[in-house]
Amino acid sequence: MNEGYMLWEKSKKLIPGGNMLISKRPNLFAPRYWPTYYKKAKGCFVWDLENKKYTDMSIMGIGTNILGYGNEYVDDQVLKAIKFGNMSTLNCPEEVELAEQLIKIHPWANMVKFARSGGEANSIAVRIARAFSGKDKVIFCGYHGWHDWYISASNKKGALTEHLFQDLTSKGVPTSLNGTSIPFKWNDLSDLKRIIIKNKEEIGAIKMEVTRNIKPSKEFLKGVRELCDYYKIVLIFDECTSGFRETFGGLHLKYGIDPDISIFGKALGNGYAISAVIGKEKVMNAAKDSFISSTFWTERIGNLAGLATLKEMKRINSWNLITNLGEEIQNKWKLTAKESGIDISVGVLPAISSFKFNSKNSLEYKTFLTREFLKRNYLASNLLFVSTEHLKIDLSEYFEILKNVFEKIAMRESGEIKEKLVPDNELCGETFRRLN
Amino acid sequence: MNEGYMLWEKSKKLIPGGNMLISKRPNLFAPRYWPTYYKKAKGCFVWDLENKKYTDMSIMGIGTNILGYGNEYVDDQVLKAIKFGNMSTLNCPEEVELAEQLIKIHPWANMVKFARSGGEANSIAVRIARAFSGKDKVIFCGYHGWHDWYISASNKKGALTEHLFQDLTSKGVPTSLNGTSIPFKWNDLSDLKRIIIKNKEEIGAIKMEVTRNIKPSKEFLKGVRELCDYYKIVLIFDECTSGFRETFGGLHLKYGIDPDISIFGKALGNGYAISAVIGKEKVMNAAKDSFISSTFWTERIGNLAGLATLKEMKRINSWNLITNLGEEIQNKWKLTAKESGIDISVGVLPAISSFKFNSKNSLEYKTFLTREFLKRNYLASNLLFVSTEHLKIDLSEYFEILKNVFEKIAMRESGEIKEKLVPDNELCGETFRRLN
Repeated sequence: MNEGYMLWEKSKKLIPGGNMLISKRPNLFAPRYWPTYYKKAKGCFVWDLENKKYTDMSIMGIGTNILGYGNEYVDDQVLKAIKFGNMSTLNCPEEVELAEQLIKIHPWANMVKFARSGGEANSIAVRIARAFSGKDKVIFCGYHGWHDWYISASNKKGALTEHLFQDLTSKGVPTSLNGTSIPFKWNDLSDLKRIIIKNKEEIGAIKMEVTRNIKPSKEFLKGVRELCDYYKIVLIFDECTSGFRETFGGLHLKYGIDPDISIFGKALGNGYAISAVIGKEKVMNAAKDSFISSTFWTERIGNLAGLATLKEMKRINSWNLITNLGEEIQNKWKLTAKESGIDISVGVLPAISSFKFNSKNSLEYKTFLTREFLKRNYLASNLLFVSTEHLKIDLSEYFEILKNVFEKIAMRESGEIKEKLVPDNELCGETFRRLN
Repeated sequence: MNEGYMLWEKSKKLIPGGNMLISKRPNLFAPRYWPTYYKKAKGCFVWDLENKKYTDMSIMGIGTNILGYGNEYVDDQVLKAIKFGNMSTLNCPEEVELAEQLIKIHPWANMVKFARSGGEANSIAVRIARAFSGKDKVIFCGYHGWHDWYISASNKKGALTEHLFQDLTSKGVPTSLNGTSIPFKWNDLSDLKRIIIKNKEEIGAIKMEVTRNIKPSKEFLKGVRELCDYYKIVLIFDECTSGFRETFGGLHLKYGIDPDISIFGKALGNGYAISAVIGKEKVMNAAKDSFISSTFWTERIGNLAGLATLKEMKRINSWNLITNLGEEIQNKWKLTAKESGIDISVGVLPAISSFKFNSKNSLEYKTFLTREFLKRNYLASNLLFVSTEHLKIDLSEYFEILKNVFEKIAMRESGEIKEKLVPDNELCGETFRRLN
């Protein structure tokens, strides 16, 4: 019985759900075996409560740490915030500088609001879009946080199945919001157009991720933009997850399609809490007609971390580095699967690489894989957020273990192994259906 | 033209409203004169962009820093988070420890959720209360953040006048939420009862601050509790501002009235971003039936700052220290006003002391006061969040300046001075109508 498991059992009695983020619950990896808690994290290594050192070949803070854990340059800047005071009655000038930097990267944008979580930034964007358009309905595709405006869609059974979790029902969201938030199908312009026409004159915003498990066709993004222009709908790209993975800034820069508002979180501060809403002046100015204000949005660490992260990412071209390495890894996953004789699908952004076992036993295999990797001191599942620190390590052992795992799975899949690979049947749960 | 003013003028073009928090906008203090931005903050001192050093006799980060800016013990713990990694794929064990500590302080509570801003924590509490009760309507009194559930009340003109700003209208909140959030009058049980009866079977939660500009009568808080018990309504105390000012924990501990949920923010991490929702197990467990999850709620700094702040506050009995000093200051304000011959009202929690000029020229006088204090290197207005660092400084100069200011105001009030004390008429705006 490891210490992490014991603390998790305790925590579940103190914290509903056991922790603050669903993606970091051990049941999504390998119940009872996943170390769950960390003492130390550095580079792409994590130490558990028993000081066992793991190589993190999994979610890397769920995508927060493109530059790895404890990046020295970013940390040095954060230390300045602490040394010179992270909070005061006055404002920190770095928030103006960070706003300027984000605008410089995204020339279509002129104004910025900051928050400290992705969910908050999503809510700010929706508030601004509704204030600007004077219309309450939002059409969305993808995952956009835990707030009422979005989760209200789950009041209709199955509405979030393709976007978040299968058959998610979430209690506690006012039923009066029913119908204000409407999902549309990825890469399906006619579905989107049908919804717009059906709700004409009532749609204030379209909110979407720029990629999902299938890449967007150029025509799709262009078509969405044109529909927004024609029907005077505010187009919001949620780049919390996709930003800085393949481009320096939003993934939309690659496709040359400008939204009216874009949202950043996760990687923006390399693990420190900072999120941003950027947008066109005429839309963003609607924020002045609304009450949007929070004490900790003035905290200094997020701004300094953001500035440092942008500078360091630009200096080393991190988006190219992690994309190239991600492509290599994806190719090796495919090759290893092919050689082992198992059927996997490999998903979509190289810097957020994932694979899935095309088998009815997929959860058994995923659990087995994670357990086998844990034995060899790796945190690994079928999802890898690539960081620049992964460039510094030798991946041959990882692939050697993967090969053994895949071969075992092949034998199980063919019936050569009769017993379940997870004999106790304590399988991991399904993960988010977001762009990974 | 000071540097801060120039940066503010620039910022307003880049950030709607100029910054992230209404309470830190220079127009609430002394437009054009207020330094607006800081380079450094330490103890109860703040340095502006031109390295001019001020003594902060005002909002102290709007109540975040009970232990002063850059408290060494808290900062040392935060440095550990940075040294050992502030983020990882795994969870930080300190969140479990902080949950335990908060429960220990509030024996009526069994479970905790953390967030990184007060607004978020308020939204989590409302979500949980609605999920538990299965009812959507919330009755509230006071200020509870920027989120839709609360600000929707402003769709009805004037509804937030007594709670936030006069005649606040906030665009961008769905009209379908109208009527889901209903204000009640402070210290007025019959008003509350009337609203409950009118909305019977539909009220899921009562959300309130434990004190406002008038202290609660014991009967009032007891009566609210009894109404909640009788009508099976979840009682939520928002202690974001009142917590740790007069008690070690929620102010409700002083009155011996237990809510079902309580919310903490601001002072909990002594300036570092951390907020908490604590509650009874049966209510809090409803969180499991809802989707409440955010990446940055797993960041380590907030938890370590929270643990360190609790420890240090307890060690020095900070709530007694700041209450005693606040009482002294309030008494001296009253005495100085009396001696000068002006009429002021002094408000309510000693640790969050405020006064108002009972005059039709109150904004002129407040602006004049702030400008005069700025000349003598003080950040001062009519609101002071007392910190333990204020115990270490000599306040005689502050009161000497105050006396001069009050005497000038008395002469202006009596007509002895004919000219306006703020000749350019660039007056400050009204501040929040919350518990200060």
